[in-house]
Amino acid sequence: MPPQFFNRHSALLGQATTAIQQRGYWSPFAEMPSPKAYGETANDDGKLAFEAHHHKLFDLGQPGRVGETGKEVSPFGITLGTTYSKSDLNVLFPAIHEAAQAWRTAGPEVWVGVALESLIRLNKRSFEIAYSVMHTTGQAFMMAFQAGAPHAQDRALEAVAYAWAEMSGVPKTAYWEKPQGKNEPLKMEKRYRVVPRGIALVIGCSTFPTWNSYPGLFASLATGNAVVVKPHPGAILPLAITVQVIREVLTDAGFDPNAVTLVAHNADDDSAQALSLRPDVKVIDFTGSSINGNWIEQNALQAKVYTEKAGVNQIIVDSTDDFKGMVRNIAFSLALYSGQMCTAPQNIYIPQEGIDTAEGHLSFDEVTSAIGQGIEKLLSDTDRAVEVLGAIQNDATLNRIEQANALGDVVVESKFLTHPLFPNASVRTPILLKVDASAEDKFAREHFGPISFVVATKDTAHSIALSKRIAIEHGAMTISVYSTNPEVLRQVEDAAAEAGISLSCNLTSSVFVNQSAAYSDFHGTGANPAANTTLSDPSFVTGRFYVAQSRVHL
Amino acid sequence: MPPQFFNRHSALLGQATTAIQQRGYWSPFAEMPSPKAYGETANDDGKLAFEAHHHKLFDLGQPGRVGETGKEVSPFGITLGTTYSKSDLNVLFPAIHEAAQAWRTAGPEVWVGVALESLIRLNKRSFEIAYSVMHTTGQAFMMAFQAGAPHAQDRALEAVAYAWAEMSGVPKTAYWEKPQGKNEPLKMEKRYRVVPRGIALVIGCSTFPTWNSYPGLFASLATGNAVVVKPHPGAILPLAITVQVIREVLTDAGFDPNAVTLVAHNADDDSAQALSLRPDVKVIDFTGSSINGNWIEQNALQAKVYTEKAGVNQIIVDSTDDFKGMVRNIAFSLALYSGQMCTAPQNIYIPQEGIDTAEGHLSFDEVTSAIGQGIEKLLSDTDRAVEVLGAIQNDATLNRIEQANALGDVVVESKFLTHPLFPNASVRTPILLKVDASAEDKFAREHFGPISFVVATKDTAHSIALSKRIAIEHGAMTISVYSTNPEVLRQVEDAAAEAGISLSCNLTSSVFVNQSAAYSDFHGTGANPAANTTLSDPSFVTGRFYVAQSRVHL
Repeated sequence: MPPQFFNRHSALLGQATTAIQQRGYWSPFAEMPSPKAYGETANDDGKLAFEAHHHKLFDLGQPGRVGETGKEVSPFGITLGTTYSKSDLNVLFPAIHEAAQAWRTAGPEVWVGVALESLIRLNKRSFEIAYSVMHTTGQAFMMAFQAGAPHAQDRALEAVAYAWAEMSGVPKTAYWEKPQGKNEPLKMEKRYRVVPRGIALVIGCSTFPTWNSYPGLFASLATGNAVVVKPHPGAILPLAITVQVIREVLTDAGFDPNAVTLVAHNADDDSAQALSLRPDVKVIDFTGSSINGNWIEQNALQAKVYTEKAGVNQIIVDSTDDFKGMVRNIAFSLALYSGQMCTAPQNIYIPQEGIDTAEGHLSFDEVTSAIGQGIEKLLSDTDRAVEVLGAIQNDATLNRIEQANALGDVVVESKFLTHPLFPNASVRTPILLKVDASAEDKFAREHFGPISFVVATKDTAHSIALSKRIAIEHGAMTISVYSTNPEVLRQVEDAAAEAGISLSCNLTSSVFVNQSAAYSDFHGTGANPAANTTLSDPSFVTGRFYVAQSRVHL
Repeated sequence: MPPQFFNRHSALLGQATTAIQQRGYWSPFAEMPSPKAYGETANDDGKLAFEAHHHKLFDLGQPGRVGETGKEVSPFGITLGTTYSKSDLNVLFPAIHEAAQAWRTAGPEVWVGVALESLIRLNKRSFEIAYSVMHTTGQAFMMAFQAGAPHAQDRALEAVAYAWAEMSGVPKTAYWEKPQGKNEPLKMEKRYRVVPRGIALVIGCSTFPTWNSYPGLFASLATGNAVVVKPHPGAILPLAITVQVIREVLTDAGFDPNAVTLVAHNADDDSAQALSLRPDVKVIDFTGSSINGNWIEQNALQAKVYTEKAGVNQIIVDSTDDFKGMVRNIAFSLALYSGQMCTAPQNIYIPQEGIDTAEGHLSFDEVTSAIGQGIEKLLSDTDRAVEVLGAIQNDATLNRIEQANALGDVVVESKFLTHPLFPNASVRTPILLKVDASAEDKFAREHFGPISFVVATKDTAHSIALSKRIAIEHGAMTISVYSTNPEVLRQVEDAAAEAGISLSCNLTSSVFVNQSAAYSDFHGTGANPAANTTLSDPSFVTGRFYVAQSRVHL
């Protein structure tokens, strides 16, 4: 089998490999859903393709079908009605092993080629995937498109580039000649073979089914593992389309498509646990709650486990020379997809004595009010607001919002908004609460969703120490700081490094702490409880394969 | 602090980095204990230095001393009488954290520089270390020198080179510029910092205290972690010297030496468990029994754990065109250090119908007898025999030899030999047993020491399937095959790759399956129960640090 796809996409792979080394801006996938990039009819075609899945079995042609599952309901109020095969794992897994035999020995060029071709074809289905992401996660269309399609494809390509860099760093053969003084040297040929670990399991989440799953899925695929994708029961469709595309590419490359399979299942059954504990599952990528992620880390000891879990993201406000820019930026970060991002800030630390700004000293209450007003202003126009907020993905988050009033003094209340296009959509504006730093029982844990705290601290040193400790104890993906004082910035940088949190400094324009750019921003460090890994870096891929060697005298 | 040591040794680092990529033969450390390489008086000086440790406290100047420990007895019959401080961990660990503060922020150049300088200084103490290894492990002098000093230094340098390659692959800064259509592009500077995971623990074994500990020790050191070395109570001295040297280098580089410490302890206390479960211990390297290694893997979930444990190494005999060479090679592999190597073969599979050779067909019994005679011939001269066998490290291995007669039909008995220089040395020749393939309860587990089995199989296909299954179920580091049939060699190569065993083909001269060469041979794969890692490869180092990032608008 010539690595046709590898040859076709070798320039793309080279660019991606350069990008992860240089870590500047780069992307081969257009992030704007524009006709110019995707074709005049792309939006309409994608929407029709999405709607064609409604009230129908999404048939992947996998063996072991025993009934159907699938009860996805759009947070915008549409019932999808798409169903998926339920799988008898005792039939499916033997078929996976059968398919894996040829796949796992095909070698790095073939694996990487199939991964790259899959991404190219997924990019062509970006609109269909975007509508699927929108109507499972509640993301507004623009985010669903960008994060769900091109940005997810970027994160996947990034992981493939890391996999390729690590695999291609091992020579296929080596000549070993050891001098023996006056005697003939010893001469050997050594052969090295990249061997995938086994079957890889990818456990998706309900808010970013593609963005968070693609790195593990494509890292495992590109290192020759058979991959089982287990979507969250609330967000199956985007991953079903993904698996469908990869199965088509596998078939076109001459492989049994069962090397990549989907295991959809009913909510609250034990599929995740049963799959995670299988002895033949050697790699697991998980995104979701800390309870489930910790359980897998503690119990799936036969596998290399990569998790992203809950965390408490934080903002330190010390001083600023652009108060309005700061307020706008913070308000947008809190409102974007209603705080349902693993990178969204939750706690904003402000010294109780207030802060210095270009407009003079502002009291704690003045800063707090300004942020509250910033949120209200941002969301004052409902048509625009719903495109920022999206909808609330699930009832648990809705319930958290309902009960959040009790967590502190309410600065801004959460309001219902009626979506102009989707009257049944679950749209809520963020709630902002004011608390004292002593109320750690309230703010020192994740309140997933649009629930944020302004925390009055003694001073900035207190803000830094508090945020560091909370990150180390409870986990955090991101931290953001506003300060005009280089010494404060240095201290926060040191604290963030030690706590393993990604730091953004003085964001006042159109970059937000929530955003993590592929090829440039490392997402997670594994150094605090929010994640045990990084998307992506060498350690994210090196555990997915090993190198077997043989040697013979020449 | 300028990275003086890094600059001094940058050429060496460059060579090592090239070596791990090309994987040919290379070493900067002379493996022959010759006056030419090490100086005319090196042997005498090293021996005196070793003897100067006898009946004395080996004082590393660490805080928290509470009494002494140390009861090392040479397998050659000498009582060392060296003692070591027992440590109050509640005093020692605060001092380690204190020392770690400056060390962990010094950066890759400084960490790698200190590691390299330590290796250069360790190399100068190779004779002292060799005698220390000899009189704790029972290795004959030549092996104690080679494996204990230059080869261990090579394995350490290899790990440092991997650490450097991975750390230096991350840029310190990057410029990120994202186009915004007709608007000004977004411009950011990103900064990346390598951050060590925390405190690293190295748990040594009694047979290869330096060779097996150095990779983890130096990988953790070179990535900025503070390192706690916990030697096996039976082989403390080689690691005490090692820690002493590193502490001197740390001091010379301006650091608190408590960044690297020794925790010696009494046999059978709970030091290993107590250290392994500390929340601040984030990396653990372990070499030893499967029971202890599995316990750490299952319980020290706060740490990245790298283990090498027990395994069953195997030889498949199918056919040969150099029967005498094969027999000589196998006999030497079984006798070398009395089988007390993690790479030593245990099971030799021979078809019950015999094998084809250049001298014609030989029956199973003829091949078996020839191997038995090969062992006897190799060891017929006691003066030479003791230099191959060394001595038995501990009573558990002696007891296993005593009871091995019951495991099968004895082909060659284990005999006592009287060492000409050390009359009290525990020297035993290997026992070779003959069993049928059905006696899996006997041979399908590790019998650590000079206990081997000739196993009668149905045919070579049976030998391959059996060896693969045993490796997957019980673990194995190495496999060796003798065959003139390319199809058999191919099948064994495939089976070995799937089972994650390092394969040697048709070894008939002076390379032995027991030997694993730094920079060229990967030691372990993590794909079977014998180890969960590889010495060394990128995955061996990437878990020891993370990259923290910050970003700011330009």
